[in-house]
Amino acid sequence: MTPQKANNFNWKKKLYEIIYEADTPAGKWFDVILLLFIILSILVVMLESVKKIDAQYHQYLLAFEWIITILFSTEYILRIVTINKPFKYIFSFYGLIDLLSTLPMYLSFFFVGSHLLIAVRSLRLLRVFRILKLVQFIGEANQLKDALKASRTKISVFIFAVLILSVILGTLMYMIEGDENGFTSIPTSIYWTIVTLTTVGYGDIAPQTSLGQIIATVIMILGYGIIAVPTGIVSVEFAKAGNNTQHTNTQVCPNCATDDHRDNATHCYNCGSLLNT
Amino acid sequence: MTPQKANNFNWKKKLYEIIYEADTPAGKWFDVILLLFIILSILVVMLESVKKIDAQYHQYLLAFEWIITILFSTEYILRIVTINKPFKYIFSFYGLIDLLSTLPMYLSFFFVGSHLLIAVRSLRLLRVFRILKLVQFIGEANQLKDALKASRTKISVFIFAVLILSVILGTLMYMIEGDENGFTSIPTSIYWTIVTLTTVGYGDIAPQTSLGQIIATVIMILGYGIIAVPTGIVSVEFAKAGNNTQHTNTQVCPNCATDDHRDNATHCYNCGSLLNT
Amino acid sequence: MTPQKANNFNWKKKLYEIIYEADTPAGKWFDVILLLFIILSILVVMLESVKKIDAQYHQYLLAFEWIITILFSTEYILRIVTINKPFKYIFSFYGLIDLLSTLPMYLSFFFVGSHLLIAVRSLRLLRVFRILKLVQFIGEANQLKDALKASRTKISVFIFAVLILSVILGTLMYMIEGDENGFTSIPTSIYWTIVTLTTVGYGDIAPQTSLGQIIATVIMILGYGIIAVPTGIVSVEFAKAGNNTQHTNTQVCPNCATDDHRDNATHCYNCGSLLNT
Amino acid sequence: MTPQKANNFNWKKKLYEIIYEADTPAGKWFDVILLLFIILSILVVMLESVKKIDAQYHQYLLAFEWIITILFSTEYILRIVTINKPFKYIFSFYGLIDLLSTLPMYLSFFFVGSHLLIAVRSLRLLRVFRILKLVQFIGEANQLKDALKASRTKISVFIFAVLILSVILGTLMYMIEGDENGFTSIPTSIYWTIVTLTTVGYGDIAPQTSLGQIIATVIMILGYGIIAVPTGIVSVEFAKAGNNTQHTNTQVCPNCATDDHRDNATHCYNCGSLLNT
Repeated sequence: MTPQKANNFNWKKKLYEIIYEADTPAGKWFDVILLLFIILSILVVMLESVKKIDAQYHQYLLAFEWIITILFSTEYILRIVTINKPFKYIFSFYGLIDLLSTLPMYLSFFFVGSHLLIAVRSLRLLRVFRILKLVQFIGEANQLKDALKASRTKISVFIFAVLILSVILGTLMYMIEGDENGFTSIPTSIYWTIVTLTTVGYGDIAPQTSLGQIIATVIMILGYGIIAVPTGIVSVEFAKAGNNTQHTNTQVCPNCATDDHRDNATHCYNCGSLLNT
Repeated sequence: MTPQKANNFNWKKKLYEIIYEADTPAGKWFDVILLLFIILSILVVMLESVKKIDAQYHQYLLAFEWIITILFSTEYILRIVTINKPFKYIFSFYGLIDLLSTLPMYLSFFFVGSHLLIAVRSLRLLRVFRILKLVQFIGEANQLKDALKASRTKISVFIFAVLILSVILGTLMYMIEGDENGFTSIPTSIYWTIVTLTTVGYGDIAPQTSLGQIIATVIMILGYGIIAVPTGIVSVEFAKAGNNTQHTNTQVCPNCATDDHRDNATHCYNCGSLLNT
Repeated sequence: MTPQKANNFNWKKKLYEIIYEADTPAGKWFDVILLLFIILSILVVMLESVKKIDAQYHQYLLAFEWIITILFSTEYILRIVTINKPFKYIFSFYGLIDLLSTLPMYLSFFFVGSHLLIAVRSLRLLRVFRILKLVQFIGEANQLKDALKASRTKISVFIFAVLILSVILGTLMYMIEGDENGFTSIPTSIYWTIVTLTTVGYGDIAPQTSLGQIIATVIMILGYGIIAVPTGIVSVEFAKAGNNTQHTNTQVCPNCATDDHRDNATHCYNCGSLLNT
Repeated sequence: MTPQKANNFNWKKKLYEIIYEADTPAGKWFDVILLLFIILSILVVMLESVKKIDAQYHQYLLAFEWIITILFSTEYILRIVTINKPFKYIFSFYGLIDLLSTLPMYLSFFFVGSHLLIAVRSLRLLRVFRILKLVQFIGEANQLKDALKASRTKISVFIFAVLILSVILGTLMYMIEGDENGFTSIPTSIYWTIVTLTTVGYGDIAPQTSLGQIIATVIMILGYGIIAVPTGIVSVEFAKAGNNTQHTNTQVCPNCATDDHRDNATHCYNCGSLLNT
């Protein structure tokens, strides 16, 4: 290895640490500043969408957006340069979002309107969850994630049942209320059923016939009741997750390498040999 | 038994396995394809109900519906033919739904409008829960069902109390607000009360007098509070159902009499002696 | 005691058993029929309030209402006659409701409009909870009642906090949105705040200014979050209630008469003497 | 210390006890009366905001408000006089609120409209939580506070995730529905997303396109589902808090080393030997 190459290697490694990791002070600062720029860029996109503000400050907002786009592009190139396997990054979830949040701005030279796609930049906010590693939130976030993952199958069955119920009840309401009362088609009726079942209740469509109102009442009480199901599922999973993290004996059997022992276990439950306690 | 009869018997038995069961690959494929056709047929009924789409593609949708109707009719006849006790199927819940989902199409020759009843086909979606047997959802679905069955009585008492409360509060609101503020009758008032109590809140009817608004406020806080009741009931039942599946190892150590072992434990976690497994 | 008086006494006692209790078959039938008549009378009051139905069937509804009023009056008199301490019944909660549900009909001779008060009859539905004694619901209902009673203080603190929050946020919204955006007065603003906080959301009043919408957003997320509080309270109480009924050692210490021992207790926790296990 | 000074000191000390503490009968009365005046003053501010009532009773309301303002000012001065470190009170949270709830009335001499700021007086209601010390609510309130404090981090992560989700979904809806369907800008779209996600559902803005309604449906089911998360978190924390207060007997039997005794246990429930209490 020539000295220059070694130097180059060090330079790349250091930059990699700053950009990709958050263990060093410089890495932390990079992540925090990146997060601020993401939030700023989203605020600018938001303000641009407000007609009155855009009419007055269009020049400034556009300039600011170009600055951010160039900064993000630099970051994107640096990310590709510093990583060992660039393609793994480019085709990763975050890599694609990073590209998509700069590209539309450049495309706006060639295609009118493509600039609107800049809104995809809001997806970059998801990076917050990566940067969250900085703080002590990580344990709590993991517990949340575990509980949700554990209740995934139950929640799927539940949502599935809710959807079938909505299709059946929506079709029924379409037959009862019909076109003249706002239930113009079966999809619209199903939309209304979900609006009612989830207790959102916009009120843009509302049953007019007596029978329709009676069934609407049943749907509401149903929705009011079955909200208990996901809540119950998640509560129990949280309780389990809490118990697991509290009472977890982190030891591994020195004989058969089984883990996940009880808190007060002194012997391995699998082979009976003494644990190190 | 003549060879032909035996052959016929085998043919019937094989078809029975394919149509009614899901243990063989052919049976699984049959169920999945049936499910796809059910979903397709419901999509067609939905699209037909949308005026704009129906106006343009009426011919295609009608043709497609006839194809599905003939397929479903064939399936219905095959189900009758292959089963040993056909009447038991015909008068079963699913048998009636299967009939009702093909009949309206044929009746549309004789009665105008009866075609609309084809919407009953959405009930066939319930068959999904039978086909679900294919996958590993069954355990979760059973746990959900058990928890809901266990909390049935408590939920009934709760819904009963909510309905009585709605009648009393609805009548009260009718007396306070009266005809001129949209509370045109006691049933309408009860409907409004349930809309408010379940926090749906369409807004098609809203109290106008000060006293009415104060009582509406009380109803809302009441509804906000009592949603806790079904949730609490179901949560506890889920916790119980979860506990039952977890601590199923009922063994006691023959040496030191410690209980509450892990499911897969072969040795006592307290003294290390072998458990009776 | 003369034979006639004894006979009279027996007659009264028997009638008392039928009317007030539900242990004998006759008593059960009386309660069920009474419940049916209460429901019928409420249905008649409901139908009368619907203009279209009342216009057509006024005569029949009125006749039916008089029949029910006379039946209820007879029942009321019988209740007074058969009980030992009539005044205790007359001034009891149910006694007053029983009187109030017949009186307005008679008053309608003298005062026009007083007939509307017949709606108070819906309060008689509360009697259902007494008649419920018939069935096995009683255990579940008691568990519900115990859990709600235990969480009463916590729920009070919670509702109190919600009300104060509503007053503060409502006042703030009145200052921000003001008269021209539908927030016509502080009470109206508080009403809107509760409508939003409880996620009812009628939509009759909605914030128009940017600041108002931001605060509305905060109120919604707040409401979405704090619904967790009563749910959590009640869930825990249900869990406790379930545990108490399950794992309750029903023994009383033979030495010091202390009860409420642990499930696996072999000695009294108060005096140390052996329990009968 | 001269007698007069001692007397003066006693007088100040006594007044301090009455104003700041609630242990003596006089102190309790002071707090209750103060609470009543706070509620009265808020009612007056409320009534003033109702145009119709203000037009008729403006003189009386103004007079009453001045009386209350003078009373509150007197209380404020007494609080400063009787306390040892007046500046600590003046710059405390309650001290600033106390000042802000009297000042606007005096300022109304010089600035027209500043009188409206009197609404800040509703913040004085928060003092209720201090006066609550009087009653037995304190234990329950503390348990509530502890449970909420313990779940603070998890709730923060959750609200954070909800906000990011709202930004992403709101931007998406803006791109789909656009200006002509009421989604006039990205902030408005985000506002609508939160209105829908929290199941408030005003209905002032509602999706019109098919794609928009499908996504709205997804948002609703999402909102209906993720309400389970804060509920689950808080439920578990309540359960923990409840367990902590229940099993506060930390003693271990000196004879057989069994723990987890009842609160009031004096003897071991396992072997009957005396506990150290």
